[in-house]
Amino acid sequence: MDRRADIIGWHHTRFGRLDKESVESLITASARGALESAGVEAGDVDEIVVGHYNGGLSPLSFTSSLALETDDALRFKPATRVENACATGSAAVLQGLRAIASGDARTVLVIGVEKMTEAGAPAVGRALLGADYDRAGSESPVGFAEIFAEIAAAYFERWGDRSESLAAIAAKNHRHGVDNPYAQLRKEVGFDFCNTVSERNPLVAAPLRRTDCSPVSDGAAALVLTAPGATGSADVAVRSMSQRNDYLPVSRRDLTAFDAGRAAWTAALERAGIGVWDLDLLEVHDCFTIAELIEYEMLGLCDPGMGHTVVEQGLAHKDGKLPINPSGGLKSKGHPIGATGVSQHVLAAMQLAGSAGGMQVPGAERAGVFNMGGTAVANYATILERLA
Amino acid sequence: MDRRADIIGWHHTRFGRLDKESVESLITASARGALESAGVEAGDVDEIVVGHYNGGLSPLSFTSSLALETDDALRFKPATRVENACATGSAAVLQGLRAIASGDARTVLVIGVEKMTEAGAPAVGRALLGADYDRAGSESPVGFAEIFAEIAAAYFERWGDRSESLAAIAAKNHRHGVDNPYAQLRKEVGFDFCNTVSERNPLVAAPLRRTDCSPVSDGAAALVLTAPGATGSADVAVRSMSQRNDYLPVSRRDLTAFDAGRAAWTAALERAGIGVWDLDLLEVHDCFTIAELIEYEMLGLCDPGMGHTVVEQGLAHKDGKLPINPSGGLKSKGHPIGATGVSQHVLAAMQLAGSAGGMQVPGAERAGVFNMGGTAVANYATILERLA
Repeated sequence: MDRRADIIGWHHTRFGRLDKESVESLITASARGALESAGVEAGDVDEIVVGHYNGGLSPLSFTSSLALETDDALRFKPATRVENACATGSAAVLQGLRAIASGDARTVLVIGVEKMTEAGAPAVGRALLGADYDRAGSESPVGFAEIFAEIAAAYFERWGDRSESLAAIAAKNHRHGVDNPYAQLRKEVGFDFCNTVSERNPLVAAPLRRTDCSPVSDGAAALVLTAPGATGSADVAVRSMSQRNDYLPVSRRDLTAFDAGRAAWTAALERAGIGVWDLDLLEVHDCFTIAELIEYEMLGLCDPGMGHTVVEQGLAHKDGKLPINPSGGLKSKGHPIGATGVSQHVLAAMQLAGSAGGMQVPGAERAGVFNMGGTAVANYATILERLA
Repeated sequence: MDRRADIIGWHHTRFGRLDKESVESLITASARGALESAGVEAGDVDEIVVGHYNGGLSPLSFTSSLALETDDALRFKPATRVENACATGSAAVLQGLRAIASGDARTVLVIGVEKMTEAGAPAVGRALLGADYDRAGSESPVGFAEIFAEIAAAYFERWGDRSESLAAIAAKNHRHGVDNPYAQLRKEVGFDFCNTVSERNPLVAAPLRRTDCSPVSDGAAALVLTAPGATGSADVAVRSMSQRNDYLPVSRRDLTAFDAGRAAWTAALERAGIGVWDLDLLEVHDCFTIAELIEYEMLGLCDPGMGHTVVEQGLAHKDGKLPINPSGGLKSKGHPIGATGVSQHVLAAMQLAGSAGGMQVPGAERAGVFNMGGTAVANYATILERLA
């Protein structure tokens, strides 16, 4: 199989409010876990890539070398931080693949991390708005929700009110998250709760309700990549990975279509030589439910404006034709910004290795990952496949 | 010649207090200039890498896609921000080389940028201290100067007071900077001024005087890399580039020896198959004069503790055996954090292309670049060579 790299080990911390954890402890815990899982000695690592958004969430702005604290044998290893907003984790995965494909590295440690809960709500809102061209530097208690609320409003105006579909997506991902031991929210809440504005499910930024938004989280995930076939024991391979960026200012894009996301996705499928229906599951970027709805269209599961049919028909449910976010997605897992993209790859790898426990999609052989930064500004699509 | 990539074009903005410029305008100006210089159409760019430290200097935390504002043909190009503190620019260069070596890209646009002067002195101090393990989150009007002052004090305790050597380095780099049209400080100030604490040259953090410190700056630099031989017209090649990181906490390292810097430097020379005396010039990281002094030893120009002999003998002067920082270095150029590493590569490329104007080292065929983040925490060494 033509492939970019093998994934030989991984680790995922719990996501959520982790008061005892710091950026440093999250990095070292996930790095140590991934090396152990891979059966790799720290001294055999050739390269370290750290995905960390920060943007004011943590006072330390220079975090690449924290990974060296994992093991003394990591001293003098190259370590680099990469950032692409909410797609920061996937940016780290891609730079890891590049280190291998360039011949500079045989074994790469990729870590995604974010510590968000220490900063307090206003600082979190400010940090996240730092990823928006127009709102950077401004304050908002709801942060990015107001941006995706504008997207939802534009989508509703064009295609009709899809609040019920958003609630159905939220209910699906909450249901899936119950089986994810790393998830922040592991509670089935049901469609009616998600579809009803209430004291416990208020509007955050109309038309988005609390259940339409992913939570603020701490967490890390890590994986170990090797050159294809470098070990005889790899279970999972990265067949293709593509990145496409779009203009940062919202005013320059159609809000209701993730054009650069579609370009990344199409390129990844083409490079892997498969179609979307050849996949057994997808982990996609549901920072807000409206994002997952638009992604159904972007992924080619339905025509533009028809995203609601995907969730109505149960296609995206775990027992559906193409389970989407069997992990519970960002909605249930939580969304520690720099960790999310790595987490998506780790959870897809678990599925392909048959070690996803209660999340397992039976017989999964191929998985897709879609991760985006901003409103489809930085977009990464990956096709992973089970080996042998 | 075995090489990693060719450098086919570049651009360097003026460095200094640029009130009318923003992160965005600096990025697009340098990107446009580099593409023009390379004779490359924007549509032929395969990959964009942006080196931007930020750390609170600018409200926008997600800056990779600003590069797409340069030209509409850049829409949908992959763009990624990388960060390694003061070595952020070189981190961008290395990821650019990797994109080429991996086969993912033939033509890469690398941009380094920083906008510092808008933030105000306390915010600048805080942003820079964000790169230090122990001081991150604290306030200091002098920022990183207190850290390098500790290094200087430790060096003086071990090897004797070298304040005069530091002044000689400052005077040399001020002298060189006069000929650099992009430099922030273009004034010869002389050894006596640098060596005397005065109202105009006060102690910033003893034993470091103002003339021992690089200034706070805005600026950007960009270059265009291609696969080796992709165009017939390249003047300059990157023969080798190596990165080594060290532990972030200062307490875990010998302050007076840049061990990971030495490891990076040795690896780059080895990969290029040359020795330090085969070089015609060096651009090195003189964020503070004590850094350049220790680098003389790290580079292998003299034994440990003997750095002072390099400047005393005039070896590092423009008319010396091995000119060091003929551009004036960070000391004269200024040090817009994310731009510095790219700037060093651009200035070395200018020398090898014979287009360095008043800075020109006659007949330069090979140049070395050394760029570091933190106190030799993230270290990059590059060997560049003239083609044909």
